[in-house]
Amino acid sequence: MVIRQISILGVGLLGGSIGLAAKSALSDVEIVGYGHRKSTLERGIEVGAIDRAVMGVTEAVEGADLVILCTPVGIFERLIGEMRGGLKAGAVVSDVGSTKRSVVKVAEERLAAGVHFVGSHPMAGSEKRGVEFARADLFAGATCILTPTGRTDAGAIGAVEGFWKSLGMRCTRLSPEEHDRLLAEVSHLPHAVAAALVSLQSEGALSLAGKGFLDATRIAGGDGGLWRDILMDNKDNVLASIGVLKERLGELEKLLKGTEREELAKWLDGAAARRAKLVELKLREINPD
Amino acid sequence: MVIRQISILGVGLLGGSIGLAAKSALSDVEIVGYGHRKSTLERGIEVGAIDRAVMGVTEAVEGADLVILCTPVGIFERLIGEMRGGLKAGAVVSDVGSTKRSVVKVAEERLAAGVHFVGSHPMAGSEKRGVEFARADLFAGATCILTPTGRTDAGAIGAVEGFWKSLGMRCTRLSPEEHDRLLAEVSHLPHAVAAALVSLQSEGALSLAGKGFLDATRIAGGDGGLWRDILMDNKDNVLASIGVLKERLGELEKLLKGTEREELAKWLDGAAARRAKLVELKLREINPD
Repeated sequence: MVIRQISILGVGLLGGSIGLAAKSALSDVEIVGYGHRKSTLERGIEVGAIDRAVMGVTEAVEGADLVILCTPVGIFERLIGEMRGGLKAGAVVSDVGSTKRSVVKVAEERLAAGVHFVGSHPMAGSEKRGVEFARADLFAGATCILTPTGRTDAGAIGAVEGFWKSLGMRCTRLSPEEHDRLLAEVSHLPHAVAAALVSLQSEGALSLAGKGFLDATRIAGGDGGLWRDILMDNKDNVLASIGVLKERLGELEKLLKGTEREELAKWLDGAAARRAKLVELKLREINPD
Repeated sequence: MVIRQISILGVGLLGGSIGLAAKSALSDVEIVGYGHRKSTLERGIEVGAIDRAVMGVTEAVEGADLVILCTPVGIFERLIGEMRGGLKAGAVVSDVGSTKRSVVKVAEERLAAGVHFVGSHPMAGSEKRGVEFARADLFAGATCILTPTGRTDAGAIGAVEGFWKSLGMRCTRLSPEEHDRLLAEVSHLPHAVAAALVSLQSEGALSLAGKGFLDATRIAGGDGGLWRDILMDNKDNVLASIGVLKERLGELEKLLKGTEREELAKWLDGAAARRAKLVELKLREINPD
């Protein structure tokens, strides 16, 4: 697939960064930006993230080879409904959502035959918001999870994978169900826990916070509406993960109340060793040799 | 108090950094290092953190104007018992422990009259261990909490405060009880939770970990034995904090199961706003103007 026009629905940090990155990686591509705030779209043009701003969804996707949903996930269903009339035959639609079951289901049910949807989750970002923080190199070296199903067009999968790779991403594939289950553990639960850790602090404690606390809670700085959408959309898995966390906290309570001092050290060392292994894995990803 | 000899009991990251920092900040000071591993003490001399290595506690504190306990907190009681015979009249003893009630109690009960103890908690460090990671600037700009009691000698408080200030620290005072209660919230609980978050991940989830997860769990990389001592020593407060966290997780479960989408966004935004306030506070500490 030759990409001549990319329509980005939602020109924030991610959407804007896709625009900048695509313009730097691809030649002869026009980036069309849709959003509900005119000022945001104007800023998107100013920073060079989009070439043309459109305030209607149908109009924004007209002529697009690739459409990417970049709004909070709670708005995806509405956008998919509204874009139906504008998409040309053969158009490929993808997204950047942190949950995948719902968007894949809606897209497969509602997009016309001859239009192809491939779910994507580029795992890059920041707790910052807005197109003014967009960066052409946001995706370089990061992982993108694609979530094709048995109904997904093979050519479209290749096209979307090729697109993310051209932005410097490593691509991997998971089913939408597996994606949502694993992301609840490694991303959604940690976010919720970081928020809980910040909110339970008494004022006196917070003023003593050091670098450890700031790092541990950095992810809690994200936008509430955006994360509300993610947690709500993945609520069964998030609730299950909260349940597992409570079990682990129960283990810890038992160890603290008991007298098996070595068992508690082992429990803590086990976590430290697991994290050390993870850091090693990540370093190998960055520098394979 | 003029400090001519500082005895550091436990020459690891913190003890070694105190040695380096003191030698760079003070003139004519001898740093004596005690430890139970000869190789560690030799490395301490090599990197310039200590001037002289001693393998006995009593001998190590002989002649010291200032003695600083820098081992894991679980060993403090034994060291205090062993140092009694070696301390000269007027010697000041302090520590770097992350819990304060137990060390203050033991020191006040067991040190001879005429020897002064002032509890300290310099809030600097790293998940790294060992004197090879010691840095002269580890304490610069960080906060040190002193925990004097009604029985603490005023001159000794001034001397210990002056010492930490000469290493570039800001000093603040709390009672040992208040210290342990607040640190459970802002440090010990976050550590335990980070360990729980790492250990509950399935293999597939861990391989998808991004920067957010790595930051959120960085503190879980610390040494298990050292953190076991801290959590055990502060177990009443840590257990209370785990209880509060479970309440917050219960709130979240209720919000996720309910339909009040705005309430969940508010809960998350409240945490984000609180963290933003904290970051602002920390930036003001670094750059007061």
